Amino acid sequence: MKKIYLIGIGPGSPDYLTVQAINTMKKVDVFFLLEKEGCEELIEIRKKILERYLEEGSYRVVTAAICDRKKGGKSYKKGVETWRQQKAEVILELIEHEMKDGENGAFLIWGDPSLYDGQLEILQHILKLGIVDFEYEEIPGITSVQVLAQRHKIPLNRIGESIVIATGRRLKEYAPAEVKNIAVVLDSYSAFKHFKDEDIDIYWGAYLGTADEILISGRLRDVIEDIGRIRKEAKREKGWIMDAYILRRAEGNETNSRN
Amino acid sequence: MKKIYLIGIGPGSPDYLTVQAINTMKKVDVFFLLEKEGCEELIEIRKKILERYLEEGSYRVVTAAICDRKKGGKSYKKGVETWRQQKAEVILELIEHEMKDGENGAFLIWGDPSLYDGQLEILQHILKLGIVDFEYEEIPGITSVQVLAQRHKIPLNRIGESIVIATGRRLKEYAPAEVKNIAVVLDSYSAFKHFKDEDIDIYWGAYLGTADEILISGRLRDVIEDIGRIRKEAKREKGWIMDAYILRRAEGNETNSRN
Repeated sequence: MKKIYLIGIGPGSPDYLTVQAINTMKKVDVFFLLEKEGCEELIEIRKKILERYLEEGSYRVVTAAICDRKKGGKSYKKGVETWRQQKAEVILELIEHEMKDGENGAFLIWGDPSLYDGQLEILQHILKLGIVDFEYEEIPGITSVQVLAQRHKIPLNRIGESIVIATGRRLKEYAPAEVKNIAVVLDSYSAFKHFKDEDIDIYWGAYLGTADEILISGRLRDVIEDIGRIRKEAKREKGWIMDAYILRRAEGNETNSRN
Repeated sequence: MKKIYLIGIGPGSPDYLTVQAINTMKKVDVFFLLEKEGCEELIEIRKKILERYLEEGSYRVVTAAICDRKKGGKSYKKGVETWRQQKAEVILELIEHEMKDGENGAFLIWGDPSLYDGQLEILQHILKLGIVDFEYEEIPGITSVQVLAQRHKIPLNRIGESIVIATGRRLKEYAPAEVKNIAVVLDSYSAFKHFKDEDIDIYWGAYLGTADEILISGRLRDVIEDIGRIRKEAKREKGWIMDAYILRRAEGNETNSRN
């Protein structure tokens, strides 16, 4: 039987790996490093993690390009499903032809495989097709949301408060009064712009845990232009950006909403 | 200057520690292990983590008892604040008298210090008092919510879905139709009982990542009695329980709520 591990590696620094992740990596025969075109640096970061924790020559690496998700289709859910379908074909191919029976394969996942990743569902989808059989296991990793709170020295919740984790796409659907304490990931829309007139603080960070880390915080309306400009510059310079932020209604301005 | 580290150690197993957590522990002169009476096993788990990663004799350990939060007062927020105040007095005493200037002290925090812990706010409160001066830093850890998803082999979100993280106390305030995808921690109320007539699945786990781990999942109404009984038995046997769960509306039964 083949076995596939989805290993959470945290948001960037090799120091975020857990002992469980490192011990799992040591059992792996082949690492599959998938990335979109233009994001070769993200492949390099993963290779450095392998080099730091594993003996040279004790593992194989197979890299593969995955396509970007086409945006703007009729249904968001259908769009994601089509994209996952395409990714599933690439991954099925790798599992079928790039590893032998009895071997362990692994994908190194940014952050935690259970949070807005989709690779787990892709493996479950491939199994259902019945073309190839394998076992699979996830290894939790530190998420960018946790590092964001840590770098800004704030808790993820104030006393008695819930935390919402959402994508930028979901955030756009919130009414201003509903925004009390929301952590946002995967926001290519800069959806925080919709709330610039509210008494809301933002805690923003990009390239968390790496040498290029940028942190900005303050009342949203005061820092919104800085974030927009710095975000655009950084993305142009590096070719990619991974950022996250927390929107938090200022104390004493809570509404009755329970986000 | 004294420096205090709040080190996230994950939900139980020493394998959940990150490289960053271990490297930080190696710089620490004194570890403060605080626990409620009756929870001595939780002190022992922490001591085993120290023994596994550090050289004998390279650090000091100071244990201290903290009181339980008194429940049922007039205001929940006030109750928590009073309890934190009492905890702050114990911690201030430790920082003042159990470590020398230039030394590093640390607290080992279950899960992640930024998620429903309160120790960060206690340190910030102590600093404001102006009695003692110190630097402080948090080290992120794997949360029980992540391990829960991993053990049940489910993602924390379905496509396009937000995630709410709440305490049992908050969950009680939700209307049934609002429950779409909620991870619940710190629930001594078994608040899931309020939703037993809904088409909701539960993914429950206790003592996650330890040898005593218990996992139950299924349609809430089908497993609710098992969870209630097993939870009670386990708590009686061990004297304490740490559990968490995810409530998820069954596919095809989504309401228009956006939890």
